[in-house]
Amino acid sequence: MKSTLKLLVITEPKLKPNVVKSVEEGFEGEATSTQLRMKDASARQIFEVGLEIRRLTRDYGALYSVDDRLDVALATNVDGVQLEPEYMPIDIAKEIALNMLIGASICSLREAVESEKLGGHFLGTGSVNPSPTKPNVPVIGLEGLRLIVKSVEIPVIAIGNTTESKVLEVMETGVVGVAVISAVMGAPSVRKATAKLGRLVDKAYATRRAL
Amino acid sequence: MKSTLKLLVITEPKLKPNVVKSVEEGFEGEATSTQLRMKDASARQIFEVGLEIRRLTRDYGALYSVDDRLDVALATNVDGVQLEPEYMPIDIAKEIALNMLIGASICSLREAVESEKLGGHFLGTGSVNPSPTKPNVPVIGLEGLRLIVKSVEIPVIAIGNTTESKVLEVMETGVVGVAVISAVMGAPSVRKATAKLGRLVDKAYATRRAL
Repeated sequence: MKSTLKLLVITEPKLKPNVVKSVEEGFEGEATSTQLRMKDASARQIFEVGLEIRRLTRDYGALYSVDDRLDVALATNVDGVQLEPEYMPIDIAKEIALNMLIGASICSLREAVESEKLGGHFLGTGSVNPSPTKPNVPVIGLEGLRLIVKSVEIPVIAIGNTTESKVLEVMETGVVGVAVISAVMGAPSVRKATAKLGRLVDKAYATRRAL
Repeated sequence: MKSTLKLLVITEPKLKPNVVKSVEEGFEGEATSTQLRMKDASARQIFEVGLEIRRLTRDYGALYSVDDRLDVALATNVDGVQLEPEYMPIDIAKEIALNMLIGASICSLREAVESEKLGGHFLGTGSVNPSPTKPNVPVIGLEGLRLIVKSVEIPVIAIGNTTESKVLEVMETGVVGVAVISAVMGAPSVRKATAKLGRLVDKAYATRRAL
């Protein structure tokens, strides 16, 4: 799982309304994973886009997850689902979502430890920096992130306005990868922006191995 | 299933914020079924209320369904779920929700026939009258309802501002029962309002048998 969590591209219909195309461009730029997030869409709309993304992720050998909708996750045969704290408890979700990777969106050490205890498989942790797409999420910063990485056994992904200039310092905290929205969905070319970020993540891994 | 669909009390937090209490009062007034509907609540909130309603419905031998959230439905072990047209397709929902009764919220003959074809177990059909809680739903009227009842084999429940004075004429269309929101949740006593409606539904059944 860890290698597929290196670079997670999260959809943002407000920035790139053609969600499927934006995901495909992310994969052309070697994203290792995608997360379908369509906050204002109906279950039917997310389901229909999800079916196409399921096909794409199979083609590209990428991990496919859905944000916060276990029903759509089940219906589109995801690899994983990422749940917000206001979603149903992780241990309950696991009973329904057999064999599905359960990620927890968390923004504190307390939530991180609790989510691991309830059986979460990975953590989406943020916001590392102030985030334009999630303005109300608390900012934990690099030190907060480092502390969480040290405190849990499960893989941690950094979320929250990780731009090109920040990837290396974020990766230095020991996270398994970064999840990005604006950095790629706000770019003129999703493919190019993803490819640049991917090279930086790879560089960070090379540095880790050299240490 | 038919006898438990005679009088379906649907929750409305805007009118009765203590949802569990409102449902219990409905059962004291001999509602045969309840549907948990909390449009603006988080999955976590619906889940927590749903667990309490699951206990209540077992105590009262009533049918428990959830509106439009298959994930919460699964997590709270419902008897049924009722899906809007903008939810995922019924045949997909059935693959996930094994052994669950699937109701379809519909407002036209075309949708009724289609929902039956996809394997829906019952229809919530409306709005029979202009509805204060669902102002944008088309009004099908008594004739529209009668036509749908004649056109499908599965049980049809009438939804849409069925007040006391309208129950008998609605039941005459051949529906298996009525679903109510405002008529009971907008009343000072949910128990008394439900009991009155229940007596009228029973009267309608007695008249049917006598014909």
